[in-house]
Amino acid sequence: MGANMARHLSENGYHVAAVFDPKLEAAQALATEIGATACSSLAEVSRLAKTIFTVVTDDKAQLQIFANRKDNLLKSAPGRTFVNCATVAPETHQKVARLCHAAGAASLEACMASSITQARNGTLYLMCGGEKRVFLKLKPVLEALSDHGKLLRYIGETGRAAQLKALVNMVMNINTAALAEGLALGDALGQDLSVVREVFSQTGAASRVLATDGDDMVNRDHACFFSGAHAAKDSAIALALAKTQKLHLPLAQATLAQFERLVAAGLGGLDKSGIAELTFRGRGPAPSKPKRPSQKSQPARASKKH
Amino acid sequence: MGANMARHLSENGYHVAAVFDPKLEAAQALATEIGATACSSLAEVSRLAKTIFTVVTDDKAQLQIFANRKDNLLKSAPGRTFVNCATVAPETHQKVARLCHAAGAASLEACMASSITQARNGTLYLMCGGEKRVFLKLKPVLEALSDHGKLLRYIGETGRAAQLKALVNMVMNINTAALAEGLALGDALGQDLSVVREVFSQTGAASRVLATDGDDMVNRDHACFFSGAHAAKDSAIALALAKTQKLHLPLAQATLAQFERLVAAGLGGLDKSGIAELTFRGRGPAPSKPKRPSQKSQPARASKKH
Repeated sequence: MGANMARHLSENGYHVAAVFDPKLEAAQALATEIGATACSSLAEVSRLAKTIFTVVTDDKAQLQIFANRKDNLLKSAPGRTFVNCATVAPETHQKVARLCHAAGAASLEACMASSITQARNGTLYLMCGGEKRVFLKLKPVLEALSDHGKLLRYIGETGRAAQLKALVNMVMNINTAALAEGLALGDALGQDLSVVREVFSQTGAASRVLATDGDDMVNRDHACFFSGAHAAKDSAIALALAKTQKLHLPLAQATLAQFERLVAAGLGGLDKSGIAELTFRGRGPAPSKPKRPSQKSQPARASKKH
Repeated sequence: MGANMARHLSENGYHVAAVFDPKLEAAQALATEIGATACSSLAEVSRLAKTIFTVVTDDKAQLQIFANRKDNLLKSAPGRTFVNCATVAPETHQKVARLCHAAGAASLEACMASSITQARNGTLYLMCGGEKRVFLKLKPVLEALSDHGKLLRYIGETGRAAQLKALVNMVMNINTAALAEGLALGDALGQDLSVVREVFSQTGAASRVLATDGDDMVNRDHACFFSGAHAAKDSAIALALAKTQKLHLPLAQATLAQFERLVAAGLGGLDKSGIAELTFRGRGPAPSKPKRPSQKSQPARASKKH
């Protein structure tokens, strides 16, 4: 995601001064491509850049890049602004905002409800949370990433955008698990799945995930755009929020259990469409007797989606 | 549904000879409106009409109108064709087909994946199952009900359309229950629900039920287009099919449990959007201490949806 955002900004008149990746070679390849400096430390990133986008995997990583003793983004941070794009818990965004403030830096959460293709094309759906003046200051560059601002939304104070993102992914994950059940039952009954998908698309069963993941579930094409492991993480964030509100959300719980099963089966790296591996008959985690995977049991490579 | 289909056919050059309803007054009012005969028995319907559409509530009713000893549609049925539109179990359609065949009549299942407005406008999504020659014979009148045939599909032998309809409703019901959870959590967190709905509509959380039921869930407008009780029935049909295939569908099960809770709470007559009454904080079945319902706890009347 981060690399594609950098590519898009670079192509659209922004000078990307520095890039960082735990794998230095990945940073170097991107740096060569867009004329940036590949940094070997996080502190160096903050020295070289004024506005720093962070895109990490999870809450732990989000906190570490700001608070790891050995190396972090806040070592030379006064006057810098951090835009944090990962889907993490609202309280993680709040902690990061406090750390930034204490270091004389500003921060904004910019949760992305889109995927890799949208990052590359600058058509990310961005939900922002934080101080309004920080949002307004960054508006031009945020607009450059969100289809000229058409997909840019200011949601509220720090943590509000992450809450909303958690809601989006919670519902998306349920709809995905639902689709995997519907297609699997159609398949087991011997229905023509192209007719099933067509009928779904014309009726109350229609959903965005039908359009993005329906074919992939049928074709077992689970090349990763948004992983099953991330789906599990995000449903867990939403359920933690529900717990604070004493709300009982059985569908979200059943969905989390499904994605956790996928992760436990070692398939968490598949795209979220991989949840269909648990529902279709004859697929799924390896049976008790381990055997060499056949060609058919291997998810194929994706060309493009979303 | 049946009355609106009759109105549409009557307006579009078809002579509707006879109508029947267990409530004779309802049949009489419709008969007056469209120039038909209001029948006081099912046998009379088959005497007066050549092609007979049936739209009933459930499996029991579907079997009774063909097999009830006292009065049924097959008492004077040779040469008649029955088009059965209710969402019932595939094996019910198969039983009915056998009864019709034995009585010298033909039958077709025409499952409708649409609601009252579409019946009135002749834009029903019709999934048909049965003998192909029966389908072809009835094609003109089926086309008149399905946007000039644009929404007409022949699925396969008797029972196949009902299977597919069960799949559609199973997924629709899950997506509905999912939306009710997402909006309820947003509400509990103090998010602006108009922003939440807008963001859902632009992201992976988008679905047909968001468009048809999202506002109603927020506004507690549960005037019935498709009842919670019907949702429970249809999810149960799908899960019975899953059982025959030894498939485990945890989302469908959690959804059935929710709609059964709604029915058990005496709210099964609400539209399926009424499932939100179980998820939003401060709503739901009456608390242990019975009290007079406040105006706010009463679902408002709907104007229009779907």
